[in-house]
Formats: sequence, C-alpha cells, structure tokens
Amino acid sequence: MWGYFHILERDTHTKARLGRLVTRRGIIETPVFMPVATAGSIKAVPPEVVTGLGTRVILANTYHLYLRPGLEIIRQSGGLHSFMNWQRVILTDSGGFQVYSLAQFRKIQEEGVHFKSHIDGSEHLLTPELALEIQEVLNSDIRMVLDVCIPYPCDRKKAKELTALTHRWAERSKNFWEKRENKGALLFGIAQGGMFEDLRRESARVIVEMDFDGYAVGGLSVGEPRDLMLEMLSATLSAFPEDRPRYLMGVGTPEDILEAVAMGVDMFDCVLPTRNARRGTIFTSEGKLSIRNAPFKNDFRPLDPNCQCYTCRNYTRAYLRHLFISGELLVYYLLTVHNLYFYLKLMAKIRKAIAEGRFMEFKADFYQRKEEILCG
Amino acid sequence: MWGYFHILERDTHTKARLGRLVTRRGIIETPVFMPVATAGSIKAVPPEVVTGLGTRVILANTYHLYLRPGLEIIRQSGGLHSFMNWQRVILTDSGGFQVYSLAQFRKIQEEGVHFKSHIDGSEHLLTPELALEIQEVLNSDIRMVLDVCIPYPCDRKKAKELTALTHRWAERSKNFWEKRENKGALLFGIAQGGMFEDLRRESARVIVEMDFDGYAVGGLSVGEPRDLMLEMLSATLSAFPEDRPRYLMGVGTPEDILEAVAMGVDMFDCVLPTRNARRGTIFTSEGKLSIRNAPFKNDFRPLDPNCQCYTCRNYTRAYLRHLFISGELLVYYLLTVHNLYFYLKLMAKIRKAIAEGRFMEFKADFYQRKEEILCG
Repeated sequence: MWGYFHILERDTHTKARLGRLVTRRGIIETPVFMPVATAGSIKAVPPEVVTGLGTRVILANTYHLYLRPGLEIIRQSGGLHSFMNWQRVILTDSGGFQVYSLAQFRKIQEEGVHFKSHIDGSEHLLTPELALEIQEVLNSDIRMVLDVCIPYPCDRKKAKELTALTHRWAERSKNFWEKRENKGALLFGIAQGGMFEDLRRESARVIVEMDFDGYAVGGLSVGEPRDLMLEMLSATLSAFPEDRPRYLMGVGTPEDILEAVAMGVDMFDCVLPTRNARRGTIFTSEGKLSIRNAPFKNDFRPLDPNCQCYTCRNYTRAYLRHLFISGELLVYYLLTVHNLYFYLKLMAKIRKAIAEGRFMEFKADFYQRKEEILCG
Repeated sequence: MWGYFHILERDTHTKARLGRLVTRRGIIETPVFMPVATAGSIKAVPPEVVTGLGTRVILANTYHLYLRPGLEIIRQSGGLHSFMNWQRVILTDSGGFQVYSLAQFRKIQEEGVHFKSHIDGSEHLLTPELALEIQEVLNSDIRMVLDVCIPYPCDRKKAKELTALTHRWAERSKNFWEKRENKGALLFGIAQGGMFEDLRRESARVIVEMDFDGYAVGGLSVGEPRDLMLEMLSATLSAFPEDRPRYLMGVGTPEDILEAVAMGVDMFDCVLPTRNARRGTIFTSEGKLSIRNAPFKNDFRPLDPNCQCYTCRNYTRAYLRHLFISGELLVYYLLTVHNLYFYLKLMAKIRKAIAEGRFMEFKADFYQRKEEILCG
C-alpha cells in the first residue's frame, strides 16, 4: 500500500501539522497547494514551468475531461498523465461540484445525478460508480468519491437528506472501489452536512467509518460568509482522524489557507492564482493589485519587490501592464507564473514555519506585516 | 564600426550566400529568419524559449510601440531590450508599412505621413526624422529608414512619384542619422519601385548610392501575384551590392524564403509562423495542417513525425486539438514553439546546405520530398 501519510511535526499552539503523503508518483509534503488543470492543462503555462515552481501535485476536473475530449481519447492516450505530459501526482475530483456549478440542468436521484453538458447540452447520468470509472481511465493518483454539493442557503431538512445521499453514494463508491484493481491509487471520502454543525460532525463521522485513504471537506465556499465557512470546517475536522490527510476542496485565498492550516488541513486546491492571473489580478506580499491600473503605466518596479519569481526577476509592472492592455498572450504566462509562485512559496513558508515551531507567529505576521514575511 | 558583413560561402548554382552579420549585440548567421515581436513580445512565448529555438534576432514594430506604450515608457525603461527582457539583436522597422496597412487614415506629404492611430484614432505625423528618433529611443540594433509603401495595383506615374519621395526621405534619413550618435547601430535603406522592373532597379541604385549598412526590398507581398513578386525582387537585388546584407521585408512562406535565398536574400521576417500558430495552422515537413480538423481527435502522433521540437517531443495531435477546441491558452504557446522551430530549423538547413555546396539539391528536394528533408 503506497498511500501512506506521516505526520512529521505538530504545531504546539494550533492544530497545524507538517506531513508527508507518499503516493505512487512521489512524495507530497503537506500542507500542500494543488494548482488546477481543469481541462488537462495549467492554463497558459507548460508542465515543466509548473514543476519548476515546486508543484508536486495538480488537480484535474473529471467533469470537464469526461465531456471533452471524452474518455475514449484519454484511454487511448494511456491516461491523463501521458495525455497532458505531466509526470507528477494528479488528484481528480469526482465531477460533483462542476455538475452543481456548471451544468445547465441538474436532477439528483438515488442512482446518481442527471445533467446536461454546459458545452453542448448533451444529457448524462453521473453515478458514484461512473465517477470512479472515469477516474480509473484518467488514472489519477488520488481520486474522490462522488458527493452531492448542497446549495447555500439550504434548510436543515434538505441538507440532512442530501448529506444522507452523499453517505449512501460514498458507501457505493467504497464497495465499487474494493472490487477494482487500483494499483496503489488513493481514494478520498468527502464529508458534507450543509451549514449545520451537528450535521457536519455527523457526516464526517459516517464517512470516516467507511475508512478512506484521506478525507475531504466538501460544500464550502459556495457563497456562505467566511466565518460560517470556518465554523463548518472546524466542525468537520473535529471528527476526522489525525492519521489521514485532510483536504479542503476549492479553498481559497491566502488568508483562508492560513486559517485552515491552523485548524489542521493538509491539502488545498483553488483556481484563484491562475484565474486571477488571467484577469490581471496579482497576489503580492503587500496585498492584491490589478495590473490594469493606470499608475502602473510607468512603474518600473517588479510586481512584488519581495518576490523572486521569474516574472519579478525579469519584468516591470509597466511592461506587464502594456502587454495586458495590448492583449498580448505572453502576459497570461507571466502573471500565472507569478501567482502560482506566490501560492507555492506561501505553502513552503507555512511548512517551514511549522517545522520550526513558529507557525502562529508566521500567521500573525502575515496579517500584520505582509511585506516582511514573504520576502526572501 | 561594428556593422560588418562577411560572406563565408557562395552557392555555385544559385545566388545564395552564407553570411555573417556582426552587430553590437552579437553575430547573426545569414540567411536568417527574424520572428516578429510586434508590440514588444513574441506572442505567447517567453524570450528564453525564443532564444532556445536558436533565434538571434527579432523584429519589433516601431508603429505599434510608438502608439502603445509610447516613447516615454520605453525611454524610462532604458530601451526596448530591457523593457521586454530581450538580450539579443532587435531590428525595428520604420513604421511605414503599418501606417499603410493598419492606420485608419493616411495622407502622404513631402514632410511625412499623417495618420490616425488604429487604436484610439489619435492623429500623428510620422516623418523620416521621427522614425529614426523613435528607433533611437527603442535603441534597436538594426534600424530602417521611413519609406512609402506603394499600394497594389498602382499606375506607373504614381509609383514613380512615390518612389521618388521614398528616395528624398532616405536622403533626409541619412543626413539625420549622420548627425546622431548611433553607438554602432546599423541603418538599412529600403528600395521601392512598385511593380515596374526599371523603377525597381533604379530605386535600388539610388538607395545604394546613399550608402547604407544594409539594403531592404520593400513594397512586396502587398497583394501582387507571386511570380510578379519574384520578378520585382530579382530586379531590385540586381542593383544591390554583394557586400551588404539584403533584407526582404515581411516575406514569407517557406517556399518564398527558399526562392529568395536562391536569389541572394540574407534576411527575412514574417508573422506567418506565429500568427498561423494562433489560428491552429501548423507547418510540417509534409505541408500545412489545421489542428482543428476532426481526424486529429484521436491521432496520437506528434504534429510532425520528423520534428524534434519541444511540442513534437511531448504532445500528440489529439492533445493539441483538445486544447485548441477547448480554448486552453497553453495551446498558443505549444503551437508557436513548433512553428518557430520549423522556420528556424529551415533556415539552419538552408545555411548548412549552402555551406556544403548543395543548396540547389536542397531546394529541389524541399518541393519534391518535403518529408525527408526536414527530418533530423
């Protein structure tokens, strides 16, 4: 069994932990951030550059790849790794969240979820078993069970009902998984529970009882206030075991990540660094900035004076603004490299701080004096 | 004087020559192809990747950079090289061709050309002196005099008149240039003459008499038939001296380049490899292909089985088609890398063939058995 999770250090003041997740395609140090390769590429940036930034694991979307290019193409390619020329670890989601957020139509039944493709309107039925079969073809290293993402807001009765369905689907997933040859791939369960603390704890307990290789917190960042998100996260984590990796799906901002790490989360994915880059929004040690802003027209400093990324070492804000305003494609590459570097460097600093027993100071500093913390 | 041009080999059967152009920023082996960085970037690809393909010199557009970001920004950046992070040679055009092809309005007078920006409609007057002043701020290594691009078709009287104006502007350019400190940059003259052989020869003679560091053939590829283009090229070249570099502006296809090399041209620029890449049109040793084509859906071969570029070594047609259809930005990077490699490799093969005294066979083979020639 390759799926082995070791906790190397525990922070004494928070629940943060430094871990090592051993997968069949290499070791991942946690807490880790996973850049998002929605349709089989990290948008605008080739794989070597992504690995050059220190990326160990990326997330790809089952929903997108299932609809386009479709399973047959990826099967004939020998799986997603060779299709997209990515040698390191791939985690795939189950498609449940994209069915919730993207599909033109969604009808949840006991069997699975009926939906219409956002691309061509074609009709599909995604079942827990199919979600795993798709991921088997993708041959990802870490796979997720199909869950039901509960809308926000949602009343208690409905949330309870959908959470129960998530549990029945998780059970079916586990049964299906045990009959397949999984070649050392890992399967993670997902806890739901809506915005109700007791349902969250109960869901986590039920999912943990099924014994997955790791546990994810689903259904957060769906529009709820941030405090509520953190409360629900805390309730869920309280019922997760210490000795398995914990994954907070689709979250979030650097601040969200810091809070979640303090609560004991090990894994994150989010489109923010890449999507923001394409929109010209940049993460810096001094906060966010928009490269479109007129004052950058003749600002010959790098995006972030404290950053050592390729883009900051070689280009000025003035140049990047010029490229952005002119619609020059190179700018998406340059800004994506910077934002991914920012996120990956943040995670490296978090891990270092935990290892050195100063995570709480690091976190406090991040809020108080961003400019000093992320330098070097 | 850095601008020194050596002819190393002459083909015995054609007028092709292998040369070495020594510039203040490095040596360029000719015949050479210059990728186009219109607005200060090779679209979609960072500079190191462009140099990694063997690029020694790129072309940037004076017209575009003058309008956006404007001279002040580039002056404050310390010139175009540092603005765009390009260490090798930059050739800039004079802006004349873009005023002809892009501006909303163009009125040619003795003093210069009045035009309205295609970006914001602002009015400008580009004179021969201003064209050189702009290029001085850009601090390009090879600069072009302002000429008048003659439309096609154009009657003899008008062509003669506009060619005479080009000559007066060249004279003014030369006078202006001699009063400036040029720090080893080179200045090339441009011959016009419309589609009239005698005017072409006469224009070349007049321009050569002014003694520039190199000579360009302007006003071709403006809509005329290919045979006519080659005739006019031949007439112009017949009056150019042997011992200066000869530049055919804005041309062209691989076939055009082969013919022009055979006629003694040393330098080329063209948007074809980069623009075609963005439209999904790929150059291969077996001809052009469009990556959108349905049969590529499950074609797991590289773009060109005979190509050793990064893209062909790592990606299949099926993957590239998937990215293109999905609008994934990475595809512009990957296809641009391939097409530029194709052009640069073609030039390297041309130089090798001239050096080895077998250019004529190479050229004949290119037409007859493309698939064998460009391999390895």
